[in-house]
Amino acid sequence: MRNAFHDDLDRVSDQLVHMTEMVGTAMKRATDALVNTDLGVAESVIAADDDIDTVRRQVDDLAVDLLARQQPVATDLRMVVTAMHMASDIERMGDLARHIAKIARMRYPKQAVPQEVLPHITSMSECAIDLAKKTGEAIDSKDVHAAQEIERLDDRMDDLHRQIFAALHSEGWNHPTETAVDVTLLSRYYERFGDHAVAVADRIVYLVTGRYGDPDEGLER
Amino acid sequence: MRNAFHDDLDRVSDQLVHMTEMVGTAMKRATDALVNTDLGVAESVIAADDDIDTVRRQVDDLAVDLLARQQPVATDLRMVVTAMHMASDIERMGDLARHIAKIARMRYPKQAVPQEVLPHITSMSECAIDLAKKTGEAIDSKDVHAAQEIERLDDRMDDLHRQIFAALHSEGWNHPTETAVDVTLLSRYYERFGDHAVAVADRIVYLVTGRYGDPDEGLER
Repeated sequence: MRNAFHDDLDRVSDQLVHMTEMVGTAMKRATDALVNTDLGVAESVIAADDDIDTVRRQVDDLAVDLLARQQPVATDLRMVVTAMHMASDIERMGDLARHIAKIARMRYPKQAVPQEVLPHITSMSECAIDLAKKTGEAIDSKDVHAAQEIERLDDRMDDLHRQIFAALHSEGWNHPTETAVDVTLLSRYYERFGDHAVAVADRIVYLVTGRYGDPDEGLER
Repeated sequence: MRNAFHDDLDRVSDQLVHMTEMVGTAMKRATDALVNTDLGVAESVIAADDDIDTVRRQVDDLAVDLLARQQPVATDLRMVVTAMHMASDIERMGDLARHIAKIARMRYPKQAVPQEVLPHITSMSECAIDLAKKTGEAIDSKDVHAAQEIERLDDRMDDLHRQIFAALHSEGWNHPTETAVDVTLLSRYYERFGDHAVAVADRIVYLVTGRYGDPDEGLER
Protein backbone atom coordinates (compact mmCIF):
# COMPACT_ATOMS: atom_id res chain seq x y z
CA MET A 1 0.00 0.00 0.00
CA ARG A 2 1.32 3.45 -0.95
CA ASN A 3 1.53 6.04 1.77
CA ALA A 4 3.37 9.23 2.72
CA PHE A 5 6.37 7.22 3.87
CA HIS A 6 6.80 5.62 0.48
CA ASP A 7 6.41 8.96 -1.31
CA ASP A 8 9.21 10.36 0.87
CA LEU A 9 11.35 7.29 0.29
CA ASP A 10 10.84 7.64 -3.47
CA ARG A 11 12.19 11.16 -3.25
CA VAL A 12 15.30 9.87 -1.48
CA SER A 13 15.67 7.12 -4.07
CA ASP A 14 15.34 9.63 -6.95
CA GLN A 15 18.11 11.74 -5.45
CA LEU A 16 20.34 8.67 -5.17
CA VAL A 17 19.71 7.84 -8.83
CA HIS A 18 20.52 11.47 -9.68
CA MET A 19 23.81 11.10 -7.78
CA THR A 20 24.74 8.00 -9.82
CA GLU A 21 24.15 10.04 -13.00
CA MET A 22 26.36 12.82 -11.67
CA VAL A 23 29.24 10.48 -10.77
CA GLY A 24 28.94 8.64 -14.10
CA THR A 25 29.27 11.99 -15.92
CA ALA A 26 32.14 13.01 -13.65
CA MET A 27 33.98 9.79 -14.46
CA LYS A 28 33.42 10.18 -18.20
CA ARG A 29 34.66 13.76 -18.18
CA ALA A 30 37.62 13.03 -15.88
CA THR A 31 38.78 10.35 -18.30
CA ASP A 32 38.27 12.73 -21.25
CA ALA A 33 40.45 15.27 -19.44
CA LEU A 34 43.11 12.61 -18.90
CA VAL A 35 43.06 11.11 -22.39
CA ASN A 36 42.77 14.42 -24.30
CA THR A 37 44.97 16.40 -21.84
CA ASP A 38 42.16 18.93 -21.50
CA LEU A 39 42.79 21.29 -18.58
CA GLY A 40 39.39 23.01 -18.84
CA VAL A 41 37.50 19.73 -18.54
CA ALA A 42 39.72 18.66 -15.63
CA GLU A 43 38.99 21.92 -13.80
CA SER A 44 35.25 21.58 -14.39
CA VAL A 45 35.15 18.01 -13.01
CA ILE A 46 37.00 19.18 -9.90
CA ALA A 47 34.62 22.12 -9.42
CA ALA A 48 31.49 20.02 -10.08
CA ASP A 49 32.29 17.64 -7.23
CA ASP A 50 30.88 20.21 -4.81
CA ASP A 51 27.48 19.69 -6.46
CA ILE A 52 27.67 15.95 -5.75
CA ASP A 53 28.55 16.69 -2.11
CA THR A 54 25.57 19.04 -1.92
CA VAL A 55 23.12 16.42 -3.21
CA ARG A 56 24.57 13.92 -0.76
CA ARG A 57 23.82 16.31 2.12
CA GLN A 58 20.30 16.75 0.76
CA VAL A 59 19.84 12.97 0.82
CA ASP A 60 21.06 12.84 4.42
CA ASP A 61 18.75 15.72 5.40
CA LEU A 62 15.78 14.14 3.60
CA ALA A 63 16.47 10.81 5.32
CA VAL A 64 16.81 12.32 8.78
CA ASP A 65 13.67 14.38 8.23
CA LEU A 66 11.86 11.24 7.11
CA LEU A 67 13.00 9.32 10.21
CA ALA A 68 11.85 12.15 12.47
CA ARG A 69 8.45 12.63 10.83
CA GLN A 70 7.48 9.07 9.88
CA GLN A 71 9.28 7.11 12.61
CA PRO A 72 9.52 4.00 10.46
CA VAL A 73 10.35 0.59 11.97
CA ALA A 74 11.49 -2.80 10.66
CA THR A 75 12.13 -2.95 6.90
CA ASP A 76 11.04 0.64 6.31
CA LEU A 77 13.61 1.83 8.81
CA ARG A 78 16.29 -0.36 7.25
CA MET A 79 15.54 1.15 3.84
CA VAL A 80 16.11 4.69 5.07
CA VAL A 81 19.34 3.77 6.85
CA THR A 82 20.52 1.93 3.74
CA ALA A 83 19.80 4.98 1.58
CA MET A 84 22.12 7.05 3.75
CA HIS A 85 24.89 4.47 3.41
CA MET A 86 24.38 4.39 -0.36
CA ALA A 87 24.64 8.18 -0.56
CA SER A 88 27.99 7.92 1.22
CA ASP A 89 29.29 5.32 -1.27
CA ILE A 90 28.10 7.27 -4.32
CA GLU A 91 29.59 10.52 -3.03
CA ARG A 92 32.89 8.70 -2.68
CA MET A 93 32.63 7.60 -6.33
CA GLY A 94 32.48 11.29 -7.21
CA ASP A 95 35.61 11.95 -5.14
CA LEU A 96 37.45 9.28 -7.13
CA ALA A 97 36.49 10.93 -10.45
CA ARG A 98 37.81 14.20 -9.01
CA HIS A 99 41.10 12.49 -8.05
CA ILE A 100 41.49 11.36 -11.67
CA ALA A 101 40.82 14.89 -12.93
CA LYS A 102 43.43 16.20 -10.48
CA ILE A 103 46.11 13.92 -11.94
CA ALA A 104 45.16 15.15 -15.45
CA ARG A 105 45.50 18.74 -14.19
CA MET A 106 48.77 18.12 -12.39
CA ARG A 107 50.48 16.66 -15.48
CA TYR A 108 49.00 19.13 -17.98
CA PRO A 109 50.08 19.76 -20.75
CA LYS A 110 51.75 16.34 -20.55
CA GLN A 111 49.78 13.11 -20.92
CA ALA A 112 49.83 11.34 -17.53
CA VAL A 113 49.20 7.91 -19.06
CA PRO A 114 51.63 6.24 -21.50
CA GLN A 115 50.23 4.94 -24.79
CA GLU A 116 50.49 1.25 -23.93
CA VAL A 117 48.11 1.45 -20.96
CA LEU A 118 45.77 4.05 -22.47
CA PRO A 119 43.43 1.33 -23.84
CA HIS A 120 43.20 -0.19 -20.34
CA ILE A 121 42.39 3.18 -18.78
CA THR A 122 39.75 3.82 -21.45
CA SER A 123 38.23 0.39 -20.79
CA MET A 124 38.24 1.01 -17.04
CA SER A 125 36.44 4.30 -17.61
CA GLU A 126 33.81 2.62 -19.81
CA CYS A 127 33.37 -0.02 -17.12
CA ALA A 128 33.03 2.69 -14.45
CA ILE A 129 30.43 4.63 -16.47
CA ASP A 130 28.48 1.41 -16.99
CA LEU A 131 28.73 0.62 -13.27
CA ALA A 132 27.33 4.04 -12.36
CA LYS A 133 24.44 3.54 -14.78
CA LYS A 134 23.67 0.02 -13.50
CA THR A 135 23.89 1.25 -9.91
CA GLY A 136 21.22 3.86 -10.65
CA GLU A 137 19.03 1.21 -12.30
CA ALA A 138 19.45 -1.19 -9.36
CA ILE A 139 18.54 1.54 -6.85
CA ASP A 140 15.51 2.44 -8.92
CA SER A 141 14.31 -1.13 -9.45
CA LYS A 142 15.49 -2.72 -6.16
CA ASP A 143 16.15 -5.73 -8.37
CA VAL A 144 18.54 -8.36 -7.03
CA HIS A 145 19.52 -9.45 -10.54
CA ALA A 146 20.46 -5.87 -11.47
CA ALA A 147 22.56 -5.75 -8.30
CA GLN A 148 24.24 -9.04 -9.15
CA GLU A 149 25.06 -7.72 -12.63
CA ILE A 150 27.03 -4.95 -10.92
CA GLU A 151 29.20 -7.55 -9.22
CA ARG A 152 29.91 -9.22 -12.57
CA LEU A 153 30.77 -5.88 -14.15
CA ASP A 154 33.13 -5.16 -11.27
CA ASP A 155 34.93 -8.46 -11.96
CA ARG A 156 35.78 -6.96 -15.37
CA MET A 157 37.11 -3.85 -13.60
CA ASP A 158 39.28 -5.96 -11.28
CA ASP A 159 40.61 -7.82 -14.30
CA LEU A 160 41.59 -4.54 -16.00
CA HIS A 161 43.24 -3.40 -12.76
CA ARG A 162 45.31 -6.60 -12.71
CA GLN A 163 46.28 -6.09 -16.36
CA ILE A 164 47.57 -2.60 -15.60
CA PHE A 165 49.60 -3.90 -12.67
CA ALA A 166 50.97 -6.65 -14.91
CA ALA A 167 52.02 -3.97 -17.43
CA LEU A 168 53.68 -1.96 -14.64
CA HIS A 169 55.64 -5.03 -13.53
CA SER A 170 56.55 -6.24 -17.02
CA GLU A 171 60.04 -6.16 -18.54
CA GLY A 172 58.80 -3.86 -21.31
CA TRP A 173 57.73 -1.11 -18.89
CA ASN A 174 60.16 1.72 -19.51
CA HIS A 175 58.84 4.92 -17.97
CA PRO A 176 59.93 7.23 -15.16
CA THR A 177 58.85 6.50 -11.60
CA GLU A 178 56.50 9.50 -11.76
CA THR A 179 54.50 7.73 -14.48
CA ALA A 180 54.40 4.46 -12.51
CA VAL A 181 53.07 6.38 -9.50
CA ASP A 182 50.39 8.12 -11.60
CA VAL A 183 49.27 4.92 -13.31
CA THR A 184 49.19 3.03 -9.98
CA LEU A 185 46.93 5.66 -8.43
CA LEU A 186 44.72 6.04 -11.51
CA SER A 187 44.12 2.30 -11.71
CA ARG A 188 43.38 2.23 -8.00
CA TYR A 189 40.86 5.08 -8.35
CA TYR A 190 38.90 3.31 -11.10
CA GLU A 191 39.00 0.05 -9.18
CA ARG A 192 37.73 1.72 -5.98
CA PHE A 193 34.92 3.36 -7.99
CA GLY A 194 33.83 -0.19 -8.84
CA ASP A 195 34.11 -1.32 -5.21
CA HIS A 196 31.71 1.39 -4.09
CA ALA A 197 29.22 0.39 -6.79
CA VAL A 198 29.44 -3.18 -5.44
CA ALA A 199 28.90 -1.90 -1.90
CA VAL A 200 25.65 -0.26 -3.07
CA ALA A 201 24.66 -3.47 -4.86
CA ASP A 202 25.36 -5.53 -1.72
CA ARG A 203 23.07 -3.27 0.29
CA ILE A 204 20.28 -3.75 -2.23
CA VAL A 205 20.74 -7.53 -2.07
CA TYR A 206 20.65 -7.36 1.73
CA LEU A 207 17.49 -5.24 1.76
CA VAL A 208 15.69 -7.61 -0.58
CA THR A 209 16.98 -10.99 0.62
CA GLY A 210 18.05 -10.26 4.21
CA ARG A 211 21.44 -11.80 3.49
CA TYR A 212 24.82 -10.06 3.36
CA GLY A 213 27.08 -10.53 0.35
CA ASP A 214 30.83 -10.91 0.75
CA PRO A 215 31.90 -7.98 2.93
CA ASP A 216 35.38 -7.92 1.41
CA GLU A 217 36.20 -6.06 -1.72
CA GLY A 218 36.64 -7.87 -5.02
CA LEU A 219 40.30 -7.05 -5.17
CA GLU A 220 42.59 -6.04 -2.39
CA ARG A 221 45.19 -3.95 -4.15
CA MET B 1 18.76 14.30 32.00
CA ARG B 2 19.83 10.68 31.66
CA ASN B 3 17.33 8.25 30.22
CA ALA B 4 17.12 4.93 28.39
CA PHE B 5 17.98 6.64 25.12
CA HIS B 6 21.26 7.94 26.47
CA ASP B 7 22.16 4.58 27.98
CA ASP B 8 21.63 2.99 24.57
CA LEU B 9 23.63 5.72 22.88
CA ASP B 10 26.47 5.19 25.37
CA ARG B 11 26.58 1.54 24.35
CA VAL B 12 26.89 2.56 20.69
CA SER B 13 29.60 5.06 21.59
CA ASP B 14 31.53 2.44 23.60
CA GLN B 15 31.48 0.11 20.59
CA LEU B 16 32.81 2.88 18.37
CA VAL B 17 35.65 3.53 20.82
CA HIS B 18 36.34 -0.21 20.84
CA MET B 19 36.53 -0.12 17.03
CA THR B 20 39.12 2.70 17.15
CA GLU B 21 41.23 0.55 19.49
CA MET B 22 40.95 -2.40 17.10
CA VAL B 23 41.99 -0.38 14.05
CA GLY B 24 44.86 1.26 15.97
CA THR B 25 46.14 -2.20 16.90
CA ALA B 26 45.64 -3.43 13.33
CA MET B 27 47.69 -0.52 12.00
CA LYS B 28 50.48 -1.09 14.52
CA ARG B 29 50.68 -4.79 13.71
CA ALA B 30 50.40 -4.28 9.94
CA THR B 31 53.39 -1.92 10.09
CA ASP B 32 55.30 -4.42 12.28
CA ALA B 33 54.63 -7.07 9.64
CA LEU B 34 55.91 -4.73 6.93
CA VAL B 35 59.00 -3.47 8.76
CA ASN B 36 60.04 -6.84 10.24
CA THR B 37 58.89 -8.90 7.22
CA ASP B 38 56.82 -11.05 9.57
CA LEU B 39 54.41 -13.26 7.63
CA GLY B 40 52.61 -14.57 10.73
CA VAL B 41 51.77 -11.09 11.94
CA ALA B 42 50.62 -10.07 8.43
CA GLU B 43 48.30 -13.09 8.28
CA SER B 44 46.86 -12.36 11.71
CA VAL B 45 46.09 -8.72 10.81
CA ILE B 46 44.32 -9.88 7.65
CA ALA B 47 42.28 -12.46 9.60
CA ALA B 48 41.43 -10.05 12.44
CA ASP B 49 39.78 -7.59 10.05
CA ASP B 50 36.68 -9.80 10.12
CA ASP B 51 36.32 -8.98 13.83
CA ILE B 52 36.28 -5.26 13.04
CA ASP B 53 33.61 -5.84 10.37
CA THR B 54 31.57 -7.80 12.93
CA VAL B 55 31.68 -4.99 15.51
CA ARG B 56 30.69 -2.53 12.79
CA ARG B 57 27.60 -4.59 12.04
CA GLN B 58 26.81 -4.71 15.75
CA VAL B 59 26.98 -0.91 15.86
CA ASP B 60 24.63 -0.69 12.88
CA ASP B 61 22.23 -3.17 14.47
CA LEU B 62 22.35 -1.38 17.84
CA ALA B 63 21.70 1.95 16.11
CA VAL B 64 18.79 0.64 14.04
CA ASP B 65 17.32 -1.05 17.12
CA LEU B 66 17.69 2.20 19.04
CA LEU B 67 15.93 4.17 16.28
CA ALA B 68 13.08 1.66 16.20
CA ARG B 69 12.58 1.50 19.98
CA GLN B 70 13.30 5.07 21.07
CA GLN B 71 12.21 6.97 17.95
CA PRO B 72 14.53 9.89 18.71
CA VAL B 73 14.12 13.25 16.96
CA ALA B 74 16.23 16.37 16.47
CA THR B 75 19.74 16.20 17.96
CA ASP B 76 19.22 12.74 19.46
CA LEU B 77 18.34 11.41 16.01
CA ARG B 78 21.35 13.16 14.44
CA MET B 79 23.61 11.52 17.04
CA VAL B 80 22.46 8.02 16.13
CA VAL B 81 22.79 8.65 12.39
CA THR B 82 26.24 10.14 12.96
CA ALA B 83 27.31 7.06 14.94
CA MET B 84 26.46 4.86 11.95
CA HIS B 85 28.53 7.06 9.64
CA MET B 86 31.43 6.94 12.10
CA ALA B 87 31.29 3.16 12.24
CA SER B 88 31.61 3.12 8.46
CA ASP B 89 34.70 5.35 8.54
CA ILE B 90 36.37 3.38 11.32
CA GLU B 91 35.69 0.06 9.58
CA ARG B 92 37.37 1.48 6.49
CA MET B 93 40.43 2.37 8.62
CA GLY B 94 40.64 -1.33 9.45
CA ASP B 95 40.48 -2.23 5.75
CA LEU B 96 43.44 0.05 5.10
CA ALA B 97 45.51 -1.68 7.81
CA ARG B 98 44.60 -5.00 6.15
CA HIS B 99 45.76 -3.64 2.76
CA ILE B 100 49.14 -2.81 4.30
CA ALA B 101 49.42 -6.31 5.79
CA LYS B 102 48.59 -7.76 2.37
CA ILE B 103 51.50 -5.94 0.75
CA ALA B 104 53.79 -7.27 3.51
CA ARG B 105 52.47 -10.79 2.82
CA MET B 106 52.78 -10.45 -0.97
CA ARG B 107 56.45 -9.41 -0.82
CA TYR B 108 57.45 -11.84 1.95
CA PRO B 109 60.27 -12.77 2.57
CA LYS B 110 61.42 -9.59 0.85
CA GLN B 111 61.08 -6.20 2.47
CA ALA B 112 58.49 -4.21 0.47
CA VAL B 113 59.87 -0.85 1.58
CA PRO B 114 63.41 0.33 0.75
CA GLN B 115 65.59 1.59 3.61
CA GLU B 116 65.45 5.26 2.68
CA VAL B 117 61.66 5.57 3.07
CA LEU B 118 61.38 3.18 6.04
CA PRO B 119 61.61 6.07 8.56
CA HIS B 120 58.74 7.84 6.76
CA ILE B 121 56.60 4.71 6.84
CA THR B 122 57.35 4.22 10.54
CA SER B 123 56.41 7.85 11.22
CA MET B 124 53.19 7.47 9.22
CA SER B 125 52.33 4.41 11.27
CA GLU B 126 52.97 6.25 14.56
CA CYS B 127 50.82 9.09 13.30
CA ALA B 128 48.06 6.62 12.33
CA ILE B 129 48.14 4.89 15.73
CA ASP B 130 47.94 8.29 17.44
CA LEU B 131 45.04 9.29 15.16
CA ALA B 132 43.12 6.12 16.08
CA LYS B 133 43.67 6.83 19.78
CA LYS B 134 42.64 10.48 19.50
CA THR B 135 39.58 9.47 17.46
CA GLY B 136 38.46 7.18 20.28
CA GLU B 137 39.01 9.96 22.82
CA ALA B 138 37.07 12.48 20.73
CA ILE B 139 34.15 10.05 20.32
CA ASP B 140 34.16 9.41 24.06
CA SER B 141 34.41 13.06 25.11
CA LYS B 142 32.48 14.70 22.21
CA ASP B 143 35.04 17.45 22.66
CA VAL B 144 35.49 19.85 19.73
CA HIS B 145 39.09 20.57 20.73
CA ALA B 146 39.95 16.87 20.68
CA ALA B 147 38.38 16.69 17.22
CA GLN B 148 40.39 19.68 16.03
CA GLU B 149 43.57 18.04 17.33
CA ILE B 150 42.85 15.16 14.95
CA GLU B 151 42.89 17.57 12.02
CA ARG B 152 46.27 18.94 13.11
CA LEU B 153 47.67 15.42 13.47
CA ASP B 154 46.42 14.60 9.99
CA ASP B 155 48.35 17.60 8.61
CA ARG B 156 51.47 15.79 9.84
CA MET B 157 50.31 12.64 7.99
CA ASP B 158 49.77 14.62 4.77
CA ASP B 159 53.23 16.11 5.16
CA LEU B 160 54.78 12.63 5.47
CA HIS B 161 52.79 11.52 2.42
CA ARG B 162 54.25 14.45 0.44
CA GLN B 163 57.76 13.56 1.63
CA ILE B 164 57.38 10.00 0.37
CA PHE B 165 56.16 11.23 -3.01
CA ALA B 166 59.10 13.64 -3.14
CA ALA B 167 61.44 10.68 -2.47
CA LEU B 168 59.73 8.67 -5.24
CA HIS B 169 60.22 11.55 -7.67
CA SER B 170 63.79 12.39 -6.64
CA GLU B 171 66.91 11.78 -8.74
CA GLY B 172 68.28 9.49 -6.06
CA TRP B 173 65.34 7.02 -6.29
CA ASN B 174 66.80 3.89 -7.76
CA HIS B 175 64.39 0.99 -7.27
CA PRO B 176 62.35 -1.23 -9.56
CA THR B 177 58.86 -0.13 -10.63
CA GLU B 178 57.39 -2.82 -8.36
CA THR B 179 58.83 -1.01 -5.34
CA ALA B 180 57.52 2.36 -6.54
CA VAL B 181 54.05 0.83 -6.92
CA ASP B 182 54.18 -0.70 -3.42
CA VAL B 183 55.42 2.49 -1.78
CA THR B 184 52.81 4.58 -3.64
CA LEU B 185 49.99 2.37 -2.39
CA LEU B 186 51.36 2.06 1.15
CA SER B 187 51.68 5.82 1.51
CA ARG B 188 48.18 6.24 0.11
CA TYR B 189 46.78 3.72 2.63
CA TYR B 190 48.28 5.52 5.64
CA GLU B 191 47.12 8.86 4.28
CA ARG B 192 43.57 7.59 3.74
CA PHE B 193 43.54 6.17 7.29
CA GLY B 194 44.11 9.75 8.45
CA ASP B 195 41.37 11.09 6.16
CA HIS B 196 38.82 8.77 7.77
CA ALA B 197 39.88 9.88 11.25
CA VAL B 198 39.32 13.48 10.09
CA ALA B 199 35.90 12.51 8.71
CA VAL B 200 34.95 11.22 12.19
CA ALA B 201 36.33 14.39 13.77
CA ASP B 202 34.33 16.57 11.35
CA ARG B 203 31.16 14.75 12.34
CA ILE B 204 31.83 15.39 16.03
CA VAL B 205 32.40 19.08 15.29
CA TYR B 206 29.15 19.19 13.31
CA LEU B 207 27.18 17.48 16.08
CA VAL B 208 28.48 19.88 18.71
CA THR B 209 28.57 23.15 16.75
CA GLY B 210 26.04 22.56 13.96
CA ARG B 211 28.63 23.60 11.38
CA TYR B 212 30.29 21.46 8.74
CA GLY B 213 34.06 21.42 8.42
CA ASP B 214 35.75 21.35 5.05
CA PRO B 215 34.16 18.41 3.20
CA ASP B 216 37.28 17.87 1.10
CA GLU B 217 40.10 15.69 2.19
CA GLY B 218 43.31 17.18 3.50
CA LEU B 219 45.29 15.90 0.57
CA GLU B 220 44.11 14.78 -2.81
CA ARG B 221 46.75 12.30 -3.85
